[in-house]
Amino acid sequence: MATIVRVNMETKEITQEEAGKYNSYGSRGFIARFMTDEVDPTCEPLGIKNKLIICTGLLGGTMVSSSGRLSVGGKSPLTNGIKEASSGGTAANDMARHGIRAIIFEKLPAAGDKNTYVLVISEESIKLEVMNELLHMGARNTIKTLRQKFSEKAGIICTGPSGEYMMKGAGVVCAAPKGEMRFAARGGMGAVMGSKRIKAIVIIPAVTSKMKYFDKAVFDEAAKEYHKMLIDAMPTIKKTNQLYGTTGMFKIVNELGLCPTRNFTLGAFDQHKEIGGEKMVELIQARGGEGKTGQSCMNGCMIKCMSTFPDENGKSICSTVQYENLSLLGSNLCLASLDSIARLNDKVNDLGLDAIETGAALGIAVEAGIAEFGNEESFMKLLNEIEAATPLGRVIGSGVKTTGEVFGINDLPMSKGQAFPGYDPRALKGNGVTFAMTSQGGDHTTGNLYGARATMPPLACEGQGDLSRKTQLQMAGLENMGFCIFSRSYLFKKPELFTKFAYGICGDKMTVEEFWEQGHETARLEYEYNVKSGISPAQDKLPEYMYRVPLPPHDSVFDLSDEEMQKGRLN
Amino acid sequence: MATIVRVNMETKEITQEEAGKYNSYGSRGFIARFMTDEVDPTCEPLGIKNKLIICTGLLGGTMVSSSGRLSVGGKSPLTNGIKEASSGGTAANDMARHGIRAIIFEKLPAAGDKNTYVLVISEESIKLEVMNELLHMGARNTIKTLRQKFSEKAGIICTGPSGEYMMKGAGVVCAAPKGEMRFAARGGMGAVMGSKRIKAIVIIPAVTSKMKYFDKAVFDEAAKEYHKMLIDAMPTIKKTNQLYGTTGMFKIVNELGLCPTRNFTLGAFDQHKEIGGEKMVELIQARGGEGKTGQSCMNGCMIKCMSTFPDENGKSICSTVQYENLSLLGSNLCLASLDSIARLNDKVNDLGLDAIETGAALGIAVEAGIAEFGNEESFMKLLNEIEAATPLGRVIGSGVKTTGEVFGINDLPMSKGQAFPGYDPRALKGNGVTFAMTSQGGDHTTGNLYGARATMPPLACEGQGDLSRKTQLQMAGLENMGFCIFSRSYLFKKPELFTKFAYGICGDKMTVEEFWEQGHETARLEYEYNVKSGISPAQDKLPEYMYRVPLPPHDSVFDLSDEEMQKGRLN
Repeated sequence: MATIVRVNMETKEITQEEAGKYNSYGSRGFIARFMTDEVDPTCEPLGIKNKLIICTGLLGGTMVSSSGRLSVGGKSPLTNGIKEASSGGTAANDMARHGIRAIIFEKLPAAGDKNTYVLVISEESIKLEVMNELLHMGARNTIKTLRQKFSEKAGIICTGPSGEYMMKGAGVVCAAPKGEMRFAARGGMGAVMGSKRIKAIVIIPAVTSKMKYFDKAVFDEAAKEYHKMLIDAMPTIKKTNQLYGTTGMFKIVNELGLCPTRNFTLGAFDQHKEIGGEKMVELIQARGGEGKTGQSCMNGCMIKCMSTFPDENGKSICSTVQYENLSLLGSNLCLASLDSIARLNDKVNDLGLDAIETGAALGIAVEAGIAEFGNEESFMKLLNEIEAATPLGRVIGSGVKTTGEVFGINDLPMSKGQAFPGYDPRALKGNGVTFAMTSQGGDHTTGNLYGARATMPPLACEGQGDLSRKTQLQMAGLENMGFCIFSRSYLFKKPELFTKFAYGICGDKMTVEEFWEQGHETARLEYEYNVKSGISPAQDKLPEYMYRVPLPPHDSVFDLSDEEMQKGRLN
Repeated sequence: MATIVRVNMETKEITQEEAGKYNSYGSRGFIARFMTDEVDPTCEPLGIKNKLIICTGLLGGTMVSSSGRLSVGGKSPLTNGIKEASSGGTAANDMARHGIRAIIFEKLPAAGDKNTYVLVISEESIKLEVMNELLHMGARNTIKTLRQKFSEKAGIICTGPSGEYMMKGAGVVCAAPKGEMRFAARGGMGAVMGSKRIKAIVIIPAVTSKMKYFDKAVFDEAAKEYHKMLIDAMPTIKKTNQLYGTTGMFKIVNELGLCPTRNFTLGAFDQHKEIGGEKMVELIQARGGEGKTGQSCMNGCMIKCMSTFPDENGKSICSTVQYENLSLLGSNLCLASLDSIARLNDKVNDLGLDAIETGAALGIAVEAGIAEFGNEESFMKLLNEIEAATPLGRVIGSGVKTTGEVFGINDLPMSKGQAFPGYDPRALKGNGVTFAMTSQGGDHTTGNLYGARATMPPLACEGQGDLSRKTQLQMAGLENMGFCIFSRSYLFKKPELFTKFAYGICGDKMTVEEFWEQGHETARLEYEYNVKSGISPAQDKLPEYMYRVPLPPHDSVFDLSDEEMQKGRLN
């Protein structure tokens, strides 16, 4: 059975207990169950009663391809509701190999305690170290410093300065093998980490895995079958995921006219070819040096979607530039240069910020007259303000809602206080249902209908609610296991594999239907948690302007009926 | 029957209609009923669907003493719920004498329309004028400019620059006879006015009143009886209200240890004698010149609580410095000089800001390290930033919630996003019930238990819920009529007068019980509106730190039971 580590930040007491009933829960499911059991829904997100949950999926530590994602959860300072944000990187597998399913940070350091803490997990001990030299250090150097000190192979979870400043746009960083910054980006979980004065968690790899299986034979059989599917698909994977990661979408999203452009006022960027996936791969290959495609962010991953984008001299600028960054930090800011986007992206990463939230806030900053579309320098200046924690920087770092409110701008691309990712719901209406209805705020990872465009026309008004609901259920199931979205198309063809994986680890026997029902339970617990938090269904909506202001090129508005929207509710 | 004026800010169409069923509603009751009927509770407060309601009480225009208060309502950008804020000044009586119960501003100017509008009401016409010369003008000069242009006796309702910038701490200003600034301060109604680009409403007095009575004889009889009570009490009124206004409280509030001091960390200010009502009157009398006590802010008022505080040369600094200003802009900022407080108060007024919200935000600014307790200049500097609409100024002008969130400060003296007025709920627990339970956010005007201290000990844990509820009901009844709180002690002795006033104007026959029930209806409508807005009862609470951190000198925490709190709910 896995264990749960609890760290009381007030007393500094650290305890470890058997996971008990939580042994069957991973990732988002763990967070939903645990929050429901232990965290007062009315608590203040940055107050003493909130807990920061760092956990693995059910398959963490198994080395099954793409199953080692890390989940970070708690009550969100951005949405004021429940939050789960997940990340690639190596730490989840490292945690699981120490036998740990979850680390829970409780309480707050006493008011006078201004130390910066690091939790260090090794085979010998789990302890809190004071490392004030890390105060306000960028995420890149934090990872580097900690690996130099503890182990070059250590799993590292950390905040950037934005989290330490408790900016609501702050995410939690999880290091990939070479120190690349992966992100549990959304919902301001970095601010929760900052409130507890935890700068980082260091997991020194276990020589021998303490990961427990209920029935390893059944598990291995399922893993073999899944990996066979990946091997069979490898020629395609190599031409798509390993080359482009998620950036291949950029071209299509522009063709479909649903790409956030010019602060969500257009659905296509006229210079999209300059910053699309094809251009990115062309530059990576032409520039060489540290530039690479087809890297894996966690051990055991066969899909390898990570890439490193180099400058003209072959020196890495940023890894990975993903689709959401191309849109939110690119087209949304009218930046037609991949170098510009990569530089901004890297800076946002180093600050520990969610690139989606920050890109959307920078779009609002242009509307406020303090930055200029197409002008990288004007945006970098604002990121430098965030780094310096000036009042202006703190505003932008707080995300799109605070930025809009402070500058008196009402039309904001968000729901429940969280910025929309790279899909304008006026032209991908199913995502409008998801953004409005999910308990996670504007978040595509809970049910993205982009992938269903062949069968569900993005502009259709009927059927979007049902499909959003179905997709939300599937994603919750997938996420509970710790799987990356890139495994979806394989595993969904054979969902029996999920039940075998679960049985192999926990001994839980279930049908495929029962497996999906587990996803539904997660979503239902999240919904109920939010209602108790004081978030009522009246808040399940999109911003008014998206119902009124048409989006070129389709000149479409968001016009799904209330009835259609309600079909997407997962209560 | 009274009329309702509607101004469509998109088409600029102005219409006037009979009040119909609304003829029986004034002030807070009118706003609760009208919002329920016409304004989508889920609408964005600064968006196209919100409406700005300017209305009088039922007794507006009658010249009954202290009955001419103005109410401003709409959906609040600060609390995201329903809001009624009320003010002294001459405009409500002027409106009523034109036969107008309410002015409703609907929609928004088109995106390209950047004009500054003034609504001008005269006996000849009601029209919108473009007056771009008023853009971002301080409230004092706005009043002066408009009276010079239209009539020295015109009723003026306006915003300061903070409202035009749509800062959430902005109130609506209503001019007293000599241009003194009175305030419908709370809930950010100035920002709603700013969103509609209405800088001011000018009401040129009607030569002949169009105010209608159903039965003038009954009304006059009641008025006579009420005025007789005031005349009988005049020796006391002269020694109290006319000298001190609300500032006489300051000494007692300090003795009781419930005075917000040093950013709500202490309950008494050691230098309270330097800034109390006695000191204020002493300085007004000694300095002379424009300094005066016993002024009335509206025609017909016999209580005359307004005063003008002069500088050493007898030149007016501010009128009126009230209790809430002494505490929020004084003790809360550790300022031991009435001159300092008066200068800050005047500046806050001129900017069009709520002094309570702004004083609380300035307290948080000290915590954030950008101002210094006891240092007037450090606070004036921040007010100048608000005037210049710098990012920092916009943050402070947005009130205590935004200021805290931006600076990463979690312990904020507020409920539902609105700052607490001058009563720390840890030492006046009944007000804690009111602040948490009222639909209006942290607001003492909805049910202040300070006045009940002789019979209900401020620190008692039992009975506060029931008493808060009773007081909330009474205040809603009083406010529906348009009465000032200073009339409370007289009218509550003879509540039959309320029913006679109502019958005299509208012909509504009711018992005293039915009159109180009208107040309850107002509160119930507000509660139901908020629930539909997405504000759930889970938000009916005080900040966590007030349950945990003791307040000197009593070292009391807020410790009422949930059961006790629920007794204060008015649903």
